Amino acid sequence: MSEVRRDIVTDTWVIIDTENDKLPKMGADGKIPEGDCPLCEGHENRTPNEIYAVRTDSAPNSPGWKVRVIPNIKPILKVEGELTKIGVGVYDMVSGVGANEVIVETPQHTDHFFELSSNQIELVLNTYRVRIEDLHRDKRLRYILIFKNHGRLAGASTLRHQHSDLIALPDTPIRIKQKLSGACEYFGYKERCLFCDIIQQEIEMADRLIFQSERFVVLAPYASRFPFEILILPKRHAFTYKLIDQLELKDLATVFKKILKLMYEVLGEHPYNFILNDSPNLLPKANYWKTIESDYHWHIEITPRIYRSTGFELGTGFYINSFSPEKAARILRQHL
Amino acid sequence: MSEVRRDIVTDTWVIIDTENDKLPKMGADGKIPEGDCPLCEGHENRTPNEIYAVRTDSAPNSPGWKVRVIPNIKPILKVEGELTKIGVGVYDMVSGVGANEVIVETPQHTDHFFELSSNQIELVLNTYRVRIEDLHRDKRLRYILIFKNHGRLAGASTLRHQHSDLIALPDTPIRIKQKLSGACEYFGYKERCLFCDIIQQEIEMADRLIFQSERFVVLAPYASRFPFEILILPKRHAFTYKLIDQLELKDLATVFKKILKLMYEVLGEHPYNFILNDSPNLLPKANYWKTIESDYHWHIEITPRIYRSTGFELGTGFYINSFSPEKAARILRQHL
Repeated sequence: MSEVRRDIVTDTWVIIDTENDKLPKMGADGKIPEGDCPLCEGHENRTPNEIYAVRTDSAPNSPGWKVRVIPNIKPILKVEGELTKIGVGVYDMVSGVGANEVIVETPQHTDHFFELSSNQIELVLNTYRVRIEDLHRDKRLRYILIFKNHGRLAGASTLRHQHSDLIALPDTPIRIKQKLSGACEYFGYKERCLFCDIIQQEIEMADRLIFQSERFVVLAPYASRFPFEILILPKRHAFTYKLIDQLELKDLATVFKKILKLMYEVLGEHPYNFILNDSPNLLPKANYWKTIESDYHWHIEITPRIYRSTGFELGTGFYINSFSPEKAARILRQHL
Repeated sequence: MSEVRRDIVTDTWVIIDTENDKLPKMGADGKIPEGDCPLCEGHENRTPNEIYAVRTDSAPNSPGWKVRVIPNIKPILKVEGELTKIGVGVYDMVSGVGANEVIVETPQHTDHFFELSSNQIELVLNTYRVRIEDLHRDKRLRYILIFKNHGRLAGASTLRHQHSDLIALPDTPIRIKQKLSGACEYFGYKERCLFCDIIQQEIEMADRLIFQSERFVVLAPYASRFPFEILILPKRHAFTYKLIDQLELKDLATVFKKILKLMYEVLGEHPYNFILNDSPNLLPKANYWKTIESDYHWHIEITPRIYRSTGFELGTGFYINSFSPEKAARILRQHL
């Protein structure tokens, strides 16, 4: 079981695994060999029962699938139970209600996301949409985070088989609240979507633009926290990923494959995360962020983890980036 | 030169080195051998001129010192120049005014901070105070951050010679603003210092307390972000480190040495950061945080970097901690 504890000083939340007794180790970078991989097709009996799968006429939990969603074997948050808030002296905690799923992105043991076909990536991207839609029905779950960890320095486990993680949270994370609030403030002042304005400006200035497709722009953000940080934005304004349409899914699959392959060509094997930045699960009569539909704009961040953060980042919440986004974008464009 | 760029979406700042052309590399964990170390006594001509030193009758920039403060050779922020704010379309930046110093903590090439004598650590801790006092005279510098990076995974350079970093910033970092605001809110409601209340509660509950001295408590914080995160708090209420007195300096030196040694015994060689959390540089007529003297309480965080943060932490600003602070504190107490 987990406790979601609030840091009363900074108002950030920490999910604490109160059951685990295993001392964390600076372990070697192990790899699970293909034969032992529980995520490979044919090993369905080594995972919990699937929550969702893209398959045509095969039975659940048998081979014959294309994408498969399973519960995390060691979930940090569980769906069962009431959401209860408890005071512990000056502190607060909520019980760890949530969900923790694994999206297995291919039946084959593949090392890199960009090695999947565009069609396969499209199925994965549609699965993200399906899972968000489904989990949003549970109003205790306030935010669905979908992300990928690639490489040990980006926090990946020893499971190399391509997969992404889904964590449904009982509260909207502080980083998303900051984004919603920044976007809301801008809209209040300009009556325009901040992200739409960023897209327009980046296309005009062109120095941080890496490439664009019919429906997406790929750029190195102005205040990049990490060398070679990437932002993917849909050109069509939409506050939530749930609104992505078929044409956008197809386009995004191609764009995603292209940028990850490009980064691999320029940086070689490197750890990275990608993060889908969606809207929170709106309540029917939420009295906050009334304008979310007009002022928020979903997007994807890709963060290479070449740089190791120091006490500076931990102590400030600010970042030091030794390689400017303009230079990163130029190098990536040269390899197009 | 650096640009301090504001992320308009999240209102966080990124210091971007716009001059560096060297592509960041996932380099091997090199070590500068003792003979080549520019921080060792006798190699003073290999560093910039010292800003401050603890020495009795030797000349500046010659051997015979105990602690030495020098400018960083590749400063990310420079003291010269005006603080100017510039708009770049929808974005903002300020020119990179600040300071970047290296506090060399011992004349000898020593691998671990806890290997220094308590007297030596006391000199280092007093040097922190002296530098903060001096830099606070420059009102362009709004926050002085002092921190240590130990080990490559904690962002340390190849310089193993014990030193800490000082970065003076033209704005108060978001993490410190959050702390000031959390403390201020609590004081407004309770008319008591939040940190003083935490000290009292942790001593009473005892499950997260590691040890206490006459003037300090050492504990595993309730919402620890990392396994074996440590908090050192002075028992006497003081809003800024500048108020630390001689008896506290002596006591803190012993406490610091003791906890770092204890962590080394329990975890073995491990990367960590420590961060001095001080008040910002108050302006004579600052109309914000009027109550800072009564509601903020300086403290030191020690963050072992055993755990590698994932897309979850990057995407949320929340943390997942697989080892509870109660268990960490119990294990550390058992090794006392």
